[in-house]
Amino acid sequence: MKALDQLDTTIQQRMVEASDLVTVALDQLLPRTDGPESRLMEAMRYAVLGPGRRIRPHFMLETARMLDVEERAVLRTACALECIHAYSLIHDDLPALDDDDVRGGRPTVHRAYDEATAVLAGDALQSIAFEIMAHPDTHPDAQLRCELVRKLALAAGAKGLAGGQMLDLLGLGADLRTVARMQRMKTGALIAFSVEAPLVLARAPDSERHALLGFAQDFGLAYQILDDLTDHERDLKPRKPLSHNGTAAALGANFVTLLGREAAGERVDMLTSQCHAHLDVFGTAGAYLRASADFVLDQRT
Amino acid sequence: MKALDQLDTTIQQRMVEASDLVTVALDQLLPRTDGPESRLMEAMRYAVLGPGRRIRPHFMLETARMLDVEERAVLRTACALECIHAYSLIHDDLPALDDDDVRGGRPTVHRAYDEATAVLAGDALQSIAFEIMAHPDTHPDAQLRCELVRKLALAAGAKGLAGGQMLDLLGLGADLRTVARMQRMKTGALIAFSVEAPLVLARAPDSERHALLGFAQDFGLAYQILDDLTDHERDLKPRKPLSHNGTAAALGANFVTLLGREAAGERVDMLTSQCHAHLDVFGTAGAYLRASADFVLDQRT
Repeated sequence: MKALDQLDTTIQQRMVEASDLVTVALDQLLPRTDGPESRLMEAMRYAVLGPGRRIRPHFMLETARMLDVEERAVLRTACALECIHAYSLIHDDLPALDDDDVRGGRPTVHRAYDEATAVLAGDALQSIAFEIMAHPDTHPDAQLRCELVRKLALAAGAKGLAGGQMLDLLGLGADLRTVARMQRMKTGALIAFSVEAPLVLARAPDSERHALLGFAQDFGLAYQILDDLTDHERDLKPRKPLSHNGTAAALGANFVTLLGREAAGERVDMLTSQCHAHLDVFGTAGAYLRASADFVLDQRT
Repeated sequence: MKALDQLDTTIQQRMVEASDLVTVALDQLLPRTDGPESRLMEAMRYAVLGPGRRIRPHFMLETARMLDVEERAVLRTACALECIHAYSLIHDDLPALDDDDVRGGRPTVHRAYDEATAVLAGDALQSIAFEIMAHPDTHPDAQLRCELVRKLALAAGAKGLAGGQMLDLLGLGADLRTVARMQRMKTGALIAFSVEAPLVLARAPDSERHALLGFAQDFGLAYQILDDLTDHERDLKPRKPLSHNGTAAALGANFVTLLGREAAGERVDMLTSQCHAHLDVFGTAGAYLRASADFVLDQRT
């Protein structure tokens, strides 16, 4: 098991390096401002530069390395992705949605600032994500930049992140298929983007595309089930219902309540094996991405 | 005055035509969906297809005609702009911001649906704006599409719309310069984009660019002052203060409270003359845009 431990240490180092790279780049892309509107930029920086493991940027950078994509091109794309991720957390935490006061051990944005500032900081983070992505510094080829803008917009929009959050709030997850679909939209779309962006930048063939998207989908699902298992162990309360939807009966359904603890754990094992299998097409070059998935999932348990 | 009346009638017709064109295009770009997440798309459609004069798309289409830009290219861009405009209205109306129950004679989105749906519908409208803009159907040249994405993101973000809304909420407008700056960010940025997008698509020279951006800026300011005059006549209450900012003393300051009614009216006349002067460089080709500005400002009084 010594070799595995060493690989884990390497992965941990690479995660820290990726996180530092992205944090430094975000710090430069969201400069401090003077003047009366500085409150907005402060709130944006508070959200995006706060503690977080930057799992998506890590996967994006590892995928890029595997596909021989220049780090500089993918770094700005990772920053854009983190801006979208940070905006979605700010809005999810709002009193009208999940009503969370704490995230990562710190007050959420609407508690540290106020609700109006939180709405606007989320909005402005979404805008800056697309500004970063479309900028010539991201990649010399405008065609690729446009493709990245579109894919990120799709991942964030009504058929991705925002739509998944809507489904979650409606509490419609009464069966496994619906819960899996909701998860694919709400958390899967951005995880998929973290492998899709390097695929676009590498102009990768379909075989690699299918493999990596399959990997991202199975990883995202495994990650979510582990999340549900952790919540289940802590016996957390289900999220509060939407005020006008009349579907409160179905609230709180998730992989663990639907499958049971044991079957949920087995599902995670199966999905982890599938993650490995998807990466077979890359041979030894896939070792780090495979180990990254294992490491992140291991830490989640 | 008969010639003028005829021109007004023509402008009114062209405004209705532009509005219809954009509404039909938006109806196609935001399709009705089945399934549980349809609530989100419904709320997005409710906001973006509701009544409204579509002043920005009208200016965009008139500017495009003047600059000989193909209607098809500019139509999708106008739709993206309207999605951003609609999202900003949904979020501005939220209880934590302006707390408005009615807009255009209908319940606001958070009243017609609920607050969580309103937050998400605004978010998803911002995403779809960039998806529309970056799509190859908008223009064959990806370089131009990227430039449009960036300019729209800048207009929407912390230094544009969202930043201006933050300033407005902070109630820092104690002097004319700050109020004018806030207005330039909050409402001016999207009006500027309505002339800037055709300028990008036409690859227009700097002289035309300066003229049209000057026109947009003066028009936006005149429009806002007329808005303040209307509010003043109706004796509307100033917006409610932010909960944590401690700057309530300055709240409610606007062009009319700072300048007085008479001087505000004179300022509008001066700005209108400047609007005309900016368009001189286009000769007779500028007649419709000039008449459009006059028509919209006349209707506002």
